[in-house]
Amino acid sequence: MPAISNKGLKMPESPIRKLVPFAEDAKKKGIKVYHLNIGQPDIRTPQVALDAIKNNDIAVLEYSRSEGSEVYREKIAAYYDSKNIKVSATDIIVTTGGSEALFFTMGTIADAGDEIIIPEPFYANYNGFATASGVNVVPVVSKIDDNFALPPIEEFEKLISPKTKAILICNPGNPTGYLYSREEILKLAEIAKKHNLFLIADEVYREFAYDGAEHYSIMQVEGLEEHAIMIDSVSKRYSMCGARIGCIVSRNKEVIASALKFAQARLSPPTFAQIASEAALDTPQSYFDEVITEYVARRNTLVSELEKIENVKVARPKGAFYCIAELPVDDADDFAQWLLEKFHLNNETIMVAPAAGFYSTKGIGKNQVRIAYVLKEEDLIKSVAVLKAALEAYKS
Amino acid sequence: MPAISNKGLKMPESPIRKLVPFAEDAKKKGIKVYHLNIGQPDIRTPQVALDAIKNNDIAVLEYSRSEGSEVYREKIAAYYDSKNIKVSATDIIVTTGGSEALFFTMGTIADAGDEIIIPEPFYANYNGFATASGVNVVPVVSKIDDNFALPPIEEFEKLISPKTKAILICNPGNPTGYLYSREEILKLAEIAKKHNLFLIADEVYREFAYDGAEHYSIMQVEGLEEHAIMIDSVSKRYSMCGARIGCIVSRNKEVIASALKFAQARLSPPTFAQIASEAALDTPQSYFDEVITEYVARRNTLVSELEKIENVKVARPKGAFYCIAELPVDDADDFAQWLLEKFHLNNETIMVAPAAGFYSTKGIGKNQVRIAYVLKEEDLIKSVAVLKAALEAYKS
Ligand SMILES: Cc1ncc(COP(=O)(O)O)c(C=O)c1O
Ligand SMILES: Cc1ncc(COP(=O)(O)O)c(C=O)c1O
Repeated sequence: MPAISNKGLKMPESPIRKLVPFAEDAKKKGIKVYHLNIGQPDIRTPQVALDAIKNNDIAVLEYSRSEGSEVYREKIAAYYDSKNIKVSATDIIVTTGGSEALFFTMGTIADAGDEIIIPEPFYANYNGFATASGVNVVPVVSKIDDNFALPPIEEFEKLISPKTKAILICNPGNPTGYLYSREEILKLAEIAKKHNLFLIADEVYREFAYDGAEHYSIMQVEGLEEHAIMIDSVSKRYSMCGARIGCIVSRNKEVIASALKFAQARLSPPTFAQIASEAALDTPQSYFDEVITEYVARRNTLVSELEKIENVKVARPKGAFYCIAELPVDDADDFAQWLLEKFHLNNETIMVAPAAGFYSTKGIGKNQVRIAYVLKEEDLIKSVAVLKAALEAYKS
Repeated sequence: MPAISNKGLKMPESPIRKLVPFAEDAKKKGIKVYHLNIGQPDIRTPQVALDAIKNNDIAVLEYSRSEGSEVYREKIAAYYDSKNIKVSATDIIVTTGGSEALFFTMGTIADAGDEIIIPEPFYANYNGFATASGVNVVPVVSKIDDNFALPPIEEFEKLISPKTKAILICNPGNPTGYLYSREEILKLAEIAKKHNLFLIADEVYREFAYDGAEHYSIMQVEGLEEHAIMIDSVSKRYSMCGARIGCIVSRNKEVIASALKFAQARLSPPTFAQIASEAALDTPQSYFDEVITEYVARRNTLVSELEKIENVKVARPKGAFYCIAELPVDDADDFAQWLLEKFHLNNETIMVAPAAGFYSTKGIGKNQVRIAYVLKEEDLIKSVAVLKAALEAYKS
């Protein structure tokens, strides 16, 4: 029997995959499972996007341009303009989700054996794209006690080697909920320039910045034109995860030319999804206002409920819709499985994502879980009640 | 300015990309361009697929399962059953086009520096997926004088090295139109087993087999279960290229487990497209009968018109909708550009794909072009008239 590749063996499994069968078993036993484990919002997709799909008049479902339709890219550029990001349609490659944008970007800037520095905990699939590209992730630890703020610049500089090609950040962060300040972004821009690195920012949660904080994009930094590569997606912004549309944005012409070759190889992004995504750009501001209000309320409820539990530590998220909680357990992996396998409170339990999968350094984050506040407040309250009772039962 | 990767530099450009601006200029000058250069059929997408999109009742456009929805995979398995291919839903990973299926497959079976043997000329984007994966393509030449039949098995065996992981074929072939016989497939299966290699078959043109010939799939070969990996796609079958749905099919559990990890990293295939693709499986047989009748008529017209031109040699396609023609020119690249830039017949010209881009061996195929018969017969007749006049004018 022929052997699969080392790469295939090394590809990381999704950190929650292992738990899925346990959740399914719990459901079979009639237990209601609150899904706090994934970034799948319950928010309605904007009607204007859904209508565009219903009203399409396609007779032959053709390939679109590899870089995305010109009209759509023009409209994306106009959207960025409204966010004080000045780019043109030719600086944009439309991709199949932010996922593909990340993958094309890694291939564009790094060869096998090259390194990318990423503050951890980070979005777990960065590991997958890195493995698929043969790239090594070099983590720099950010701490729950600092609310996951940017680690000191010296920590980055210690890790820079001749193999380092880029620093990758997620802003606001999944799984941390941390929103980088303008000062932090400028500091990162400085080291990117000093060491001639790319600075990649995954800004798929741009809209989700709370408490009046303004999101500051790496694309707004002057003088960073050749270094900055932004990753974006419609998935979270418009609660359109199933569309699979994202983009790469960079003013570096070589980066765009290379990403375009990756895009050409796979022919084109999905056509229906592009139609929906183009229409979604006309979503009224009131939609976002409502959504943000909802998430802020959810966050406040979740965090204050969690803080009531003894020995639970929470990093207060300033953006996105995740939070990391440190629990009084030794092994959150085991606890998460136990929650599904052995525990219920009035026939209800919760599914959380053990945080170790978001760290690259072995052994840290083992007592942390990521909680996605993608459910309505009353369900979050019930979920935290489950967690509280479970922690008590688990100890004994 | 930070440098992009060697991989990014090496990623091949689409073989027709260079010509696109010339085609656009021609159109601006009021010249009608017949597009014989790409595999974008003009055939209507089945109504049942388009209706499913119009009638969807999605309110929150969610991620689907990474491997594709269970219902859809069950239905695909039933479709294969009707083609005498016995697989179950768990042998299938739904991908974003056949393109992604090819990419996941390469990552699953080969590491950087490993080799895959491919009969050339081959689908040009195999080069792109190989480069993105760090894999080396080792070509084995098939010849227009043999109608692009399978090269002798000894030619394959000569090329097998410890780095060889797989043989990849396209059946029926793009760009050759060649349909492998059962005997040829069995020969390939033998060397795959003998040398412990994977045998990958890109069968996206399965339905397009002409003259009563039956398509014989590698999945039908007994004893090849652990070696066979099939690539499939809805793009051509249902004229749904813009959907971006395909799949990997294999009975090798390790292959599927690895491909699943690649699939998890990118979260899910597009939801709308899956809805359309699932519905497309209910397309009535009459649709295919009509389409095949149409393509056979087109092929017959194209080939017989081409054969009327002196010094033009054509390989007679038995499947797919491409044919390779050898022209009395030294450099088909130059000729193809000249057709767009300098020539027209009654304000009409043609765009063809120079075939050199479909070869991996340098220097061969330089006098060949690929013609896609994706236009109606009267346009094909006009196109060949343009070609004939152009060849006369080009010589002088
Ligand atoms: C930080 C981050 N980046 C990228 C993605 C990829 O999303 P998509 O491929 O749906 O655009 C996600 C999805 O959860 C994410 O959380
Ligand atoms: C031989 C072959 N394989 C795979 C593909 C990829 O098609 P898709 O990604 O649209 O499924 C094509 C497209 O032209 C092709 O010709």
